[in-house]
Amino acid sequence: MARTELKLLGAWLSPYVMRARIALNIKSVDYEFLQETLGSKSQLLLESNPVHKKIPVLIHKGKPICESLIIVEYIDETWSSGPSILPSDPYDRAIAKFWGTYVDEKWFPNLRILTAEGEAKDHVIRTIVEGLDLLEDAFVKISKGKTFFGEDQIGYLDIAFGCYLGWLRALEKISEVKLLDEAKTPGLAKWADTFSSHPAVKDVKPEVDKLVEYGKSPEAKYRAAKAASS
Amino acid sequence: MARTELKLLGAWLSPYVMRARIALNIKSVDYEFLQETLGSKSQLLLESNPVHKKIPVLIHKGKPICESLIIVEYIDETWSSGPSILPSDPYDRAIAKFWGTYVDEKWFPNLRILTAEGEAKDHVIRTIVEGLDLLEDAFVKISKGKTFFGEDQIGYLDIAFGCYLGWLRALEKISEVKLLDEAKTPGLAKWADTFSSHPAVKDVKPEVDKLVEYGKSPEAKYRAAKAASS
Repeated sequence: MARTELKLLGAWLSPYVMRARIALNIKSVDYEFLQETLGSKSQLLLESNPVHKKIPVLIHKGKPICESLIIVEYIDETWSSGPSILPSDPYDRAIAKFWGTYVDEKWFPNLRILTAEGEAKDHVIRTIVEGLDLLEDAFVKISKGKTFFGEDQIGYLDIAFGCYLGWLRALEKISEVKLLDEAKTPGLAKWADTFSSHPAVKDVKPEVDKLVEYGKSPEAKYRAAKAASS
Repeated sequence: MARTELKLLGAWLSPYVMRARIALNIKSVDYEFLQETLGSKSQLLLESNPVHKKIPVLIHKGKPICESLIIVEYIDETWSSGPSILPSDPYDRAIAKFWGTYVDEKWFPNLRILTAEGEAKDHVIRTIVEGLDLLEDAFVKISKGKTFFGEDQIGYLDIAFGCYLGWLRALEKISEVKLLDEAKTPGLAKWADTFSSHPAVKDVKPEVDKLVEYGKSPEAKYRAAKAASS
C-alpha cells in the first residue's frame, strides 16, 4: 500500500495517538504521521473529525476514522499482516473492552489533573491508586501468568492502558509519589516494564522528562484546571 | 440453551437495559429477566459488576458481561441465530461505533437533565437539538436511503440511539417542546417510527407516560440535579 493512502493525524504527547501508532506497528503498516501543532487545529483535522475536532484521526484511502479505541479495532480488522490485537474469544473481548472503557472513563480523567495541589492532589493520588489496585486484580485474573493481558503478545487492553504509562511516570515525578508500586502492584509493575520496551512501543512512547516539562507548562496547568472543573 | 444459563439484570426504564433486550430479541434468544428494585442494588448485581455496580449485566453460564454496548457486541458475536447486528465492513463498523459513543458521551447526558428549568432548560433543549441535527446528517449519510442506519434491518447504531427515543418523547412532554421534528429531521422522524414499532423493540420499550411520571418524581429530580452538577 502506498504510504500516502494512510495518514495519522496526531501529536507526540497524546496517549490516544500512541494507541493508533502501536496498533499500526504491530501490523507492520507504513503510514504518514501528520503532527498537529499544540494549541491549534489543522484544516484537515477540522474536516476529518468535525464532531469532536480531536486527534487521533486515521485517514485510510481518504476516509477518516476517529476515536482511538475504534481506530485500534479498525486496524486489527483491516490488516492481517501481524498478530491479532483483540482476543479471539467473545467473552475475552468483552472483558478487554470493559477495562479499556474503565481506564478511559474512570481512571485517566484523574491522571489528567497532573498539577493538582493540596487536598485536590491527595484526592487525585488516592483515586489513581484505587484504580491501579483494581487493574492489578484484573491483570492477575486476565493474564493467568502470561506476559500481557491475556496473551503472550500485546493486545487491546495492553494498548488501551499502556498508553497512559508515560503520563503516570510523569505524574510520579511531578507529585514525588510512587504510584505504580512493585510492592503493591507487582503484576502491573512487571507488565509496565515489558510493555514499554516492546518493539511496537519503544519508539512511539513519549519521553517522561518531556511530559514532565509539558505538565508544568502554563498550557498544561490551564488544561488540567479545565479538566478538574468539568 | 436452558433459560437459566442466561440472565439479564435490568430495570424497565433503563435505555441501556433495553439495548441488551433488543439484541437478544433479534437473535431470538430466551433469557431470564431479573429486575432490580429502583433505588437499591441486589447482591447479584454488586457481585456481577463490582466496579460500576450498574445495570445492565448479562450473565452467561455464570460469567458476567457489563456495559450495554459491549453486551450488544457480545450477543452479536455469540449467537448466530438471527441477523448480524454489527455491520460486516470494518469501516461501517467504525462509523457505527463512533456515533454509538457520541450519543452516550455527548448527547444523552443532556437528555438526562429532564427537569431543568429556565436558562438551564433552554441550554438542554438547544444542545439536544444540535445533537439531533448532527444525527440527522449522519442518518442521511449512513442509511443511503435504507430504512435503518445502513441496513434494511435493525443494527448496532439503531439500538444504541433508538433506546433513547422513549426518554426523548418523555422530555418533549415534560418540556412541551417538540424535539424530533419531522420538518427539521425528517429522516430521523421516520426512522424513529419504524424503529419503535419493530417486533424486536415494541415489547421492550418503556411507555412514555410512565417515563414522564417517573421523570417528575423526586428521585428523578434528584438524579437529574446530580447529573447536571457532575
